[in-house]
Amino acid sequence: KFLIFAYFGVVHLLSLCSGKPIYKNDVSKRTFQEVKEEIASYGDIAKAIINLAVYGKAQNRSYERLALLVDTVGPRLSGSKNLEKAIQIMYQNLQRDGLDNVHLEPVRIPHWERGEESAVMLEPRTHKIAMLGLGSSIGTPPEGITAEVLVVTSFDELQRRASEARGKIVVYNQPYINYSKTVQYRTQGAVEAAKVGALASLIRSVASFSIYSPHTGIQEYQDGVPKIPTACITVEDAEMMSRMAANGIKIVIQLKMAAKTYPDTDSFNTVAEITGSKYPEQVVLVSGHLDSWDVGQGAMDDGGGAFISWEALSLIKDLVNVSNYSLVMESDAGTFLPTGLQFTGSEKARAIMEEVMSLLQPLNITQVLSHGEGTDINFWIQAGVPGASLLDDLYKYFFFHHSHGDTMTVMDPKQMNVAAAVWAVVSYVVADMEEMLPRS
Amino acid sequence: KFLIFAYFGVVHLLSLCSGKPIYKNDVSKRTFQEVKEEIASYGDIAKAIINLAVYGKAQNRSYERLALLVDTVGPRLSGSKNLEKAIQIMYQNLQRDGLDNVHLEPVRIPHWERGEESAVMLEPRTHKIAMLGLGSSIGTPPEGITAEVLVVTSFDELQRRASEARGKIVVYNQPYINYSKTVQYRTQGAVEAAKVGALASLIRSVASFSIYSPHTGIQEYQDGVPKIPTACITVEDAEMMSRMAANGIKIVIQLKMAAKTYPDTDSFNTVAEITGSKYPEQVVLVSGHLDSWDVGQGAMDDGGGAFISWEALSLIKDLVNVSNYSLVMESDAGTFLPTGLQFTGSEKARAIMEEVMSLLQPLNITQVLSHGEGTDINFWIQAGVPGASLLDDLYKYFFFHHSHGDTMTVMDPKQMNVAAAVWAVVSYVVADMEEMLPRS
Repeated sequence: KFLIFAYFGVVHLLSLCSGKPIYKNDVSKRTFQEVKEEIASYGDIAKAIINLAVYGKAQNRSYERLALLVDTVGPRLSGSKNLEKAIQIMYQNLQRDGLDNVHLEPVRIPHWERGEESAVMLEPRTHKIAMLGLGSSIGTPPEGITAEVLVVTSFDELQRRASEARGKIVVYNQPYINYSKTVQYRTQGAVEAAKVGALASLIRSVASFSIYSPHTGIQEYQDGVPKIPTACITVEDAEMMSRMAANGIKIVIQLKMAAKTYPDTDSFNTVAEITGSKYPEQVVLVSGHLDSWDVGQGAMDDGGGAFISWEALSLIKDLVNVSNYSLVMESDAGTFLPTGLQFTGSEKARAIMEEVMSLLQPLNITQVLSHGEGTDINFWIQAGVPGASLLDDLYKYFFFHHSHGDTMTVMDPKQMNVAAAVWAVVSYVVADMEEMLPRS
Repeated sequence: KFLIFAYFGVVHLLSLCSGKPIYKNDVSKRTFQEVKEEIASYGDIAKAIINLAVYGKAQNRSYERLALLVDTVGPRLSGSKNLEKAIQIMYQNLQRDGLDNVHLEPVRIPHWERGEESAVMLEPRTHKIAMLGLGSSIGTPPEGITAEVLVVTSFDELQRRASEARGKIVVYNQPYINYSKTVQYRTQGAVEAAKVGALASLIRSVASFSIYSPHTGIQEYQDGVPKIPTACITVEDAEMMSRMAANGIKIVIQLKMAAKTYPDTDSFNTVAEITGSKYPEQVVLVSGHLDSWDVGQGAMDDGGGAFISWEALSLIKDLVNVSNYSLVMESDAGTFLPTGLQFTGSEKARAIMEEVMSLLQPLNITQVLSHGEGTDINFWIQAGVPGASLLDDLYKYFFFHHSHGDTMTVMDPKQMNVAAAVWAVVSYVVADMEEMLPRS
């Protein structure tokens, strides 16, 4: 009965969304028991969605649609022509799918290009180092930076050995703990190295497993601290240099990067809706981002999330003649077999979500976990809107994240079917329920 | 009581070993029960070896020795300076370890170099294709070969579509079944493609899992069939081109390879011994190969196998004042946590090996499996010598095999401790037993 819309943000890193959350949260006069019964009444619709997505004629549709886009366009970095092409194709796709109010929402986005880049170990032996410059890094002079290496395994060690860092290339060989902890080395590594006089920094890829793959990602400079070039290297090379350094062996690297930041450029968020029949001003939002890093195909991060969000609308449109932000949903952590739904909201809303997820008993995916936040939906969550994210095998996710390995080969059509079914059932039921999710 | 020697063949692909198997297989006058009791009497020695390797002062020694070699030298392709350097270092290592009769055994080996190489998809979009030329492949003309692609998933499909292959680059997207079946596409792919008039062939890497890694390896030309350049590409790109072709999309690739075969060159097998006290003319051989492909570090294939073979001798020398080929043992399928011992020999010999492996009960690794053959020991097995190979997780092995990912990061010191203990117990007990393993 509500409006459901699929929101394909272009940019992963900034809250550029222009939607304004409006919410008239009438105090509900109903008991929880009544809400529970209402949700249970959606059992048949949930089963119909599941059957259509997982066993029926819509199976593999999101996978095949995604393969066609990412094979045709390839990776889609913010500011690139590939991204603009993907947005145009997506816009046409959504129109052709007969969705409502398909439109492009203008945004300004960053434009950085890595250009030619290389790293070569010159001492103790010649060795070509696989690397990827980090997003927003400056380049080196054309002749590169050739310097001795200081290997550290933590920011603490860098502080203790600050006097050794001047004029060197700092290599971070931090262990992988989890993404949010370990990624600090990628985002802050250059700043910390520059503070102690380093010429450049190379960061062990933030990856849970490696077959000699560098994994890129964003890094952040800090006002008042010199900007130095920074790139990621493989887990393998970081470990090797750490062993060499422990044996007292001098390491010299030549780093060349032609990376450059250009002025911000115009782009679009891509939006499609299913207009509600009764309360069209009340909204459930499902989303994933269309942009990707400039390696691999951006199939997993976040092609899969964007395409199961589209699929949720397609499934609902296929099945039902359906009905201001009741819920915002983002899929940006893989579309493997879902573990459950991560949710951020009031205790009352959580209790309702647990009832909604119980409709997914036929798929045995009923968990409601914490931390529903997501880059594309935090804008609304901070304004009080309940938020949900799809959770799956994050350990596996970081095998491929931001690497050349993020391709369609990672994706499994059967797993995408299930993810799309979860996504469609949750968005449909929450949108169609009589009342919006309570915010307190 | 016998001679145990560690044999580090340089070449994986040819039987170059010059050792001559001599065997005076006296008919045993003992009952199996007597042999069984003899083996059981080694329980304390087996425990001592296990304690030394897995929990004692020798723990991690094979891992650390291996790391030092492969970090210092890097990969060691047949015919390369790196290999000769590794052989010299290994020779010094074995002498310094105080082993007997350390010597280099001259052999002639092939010399092929890949040179500069690249593959770029020009249509339907520009895409740099990760690739590795296959061992023994010819190069392309300097301007490369630019041609349309024919994608097939099997030799059968290539035959059915033979008329479409002329003047094209054949891309094989064969599924991964297992190594021995799937590797046919790597070894024979160029010949089959040349027979139907193709200009070059690109083969999906023979890998059980991929993060956009190409996996190289040997390929074989055939007399009377034109030689065409051939390389491996990633699973990801092979699958993508297969999807594109299924959608009727024209694919054009430019392939450049400067690969070249040089005349055979001189090299050495590296040998060290522990001379037996009672029957020094009777031998147990443990082996792995020192050479590797020219990518990664050759840490897993076969640094680990070579170094646990050395470690087996070191452990025995550390522990005991120890005794013509009773048994030949090769480790060339990884030194992860062993599943058991693969064995080829008579039923009587197998029954004895089962008793020997029961000494490894403290490590819970007691299985005796079939197929003890191995490239470096087949020479002797074909002459009737019983042979054994170490078996571990082959599925994981082919994550990294012949790829940039074959580095020390793959290796686990704890797993190497266990593998070395298995290796040392089996070689010591078989060497020290009163009688040689029966050949019939």
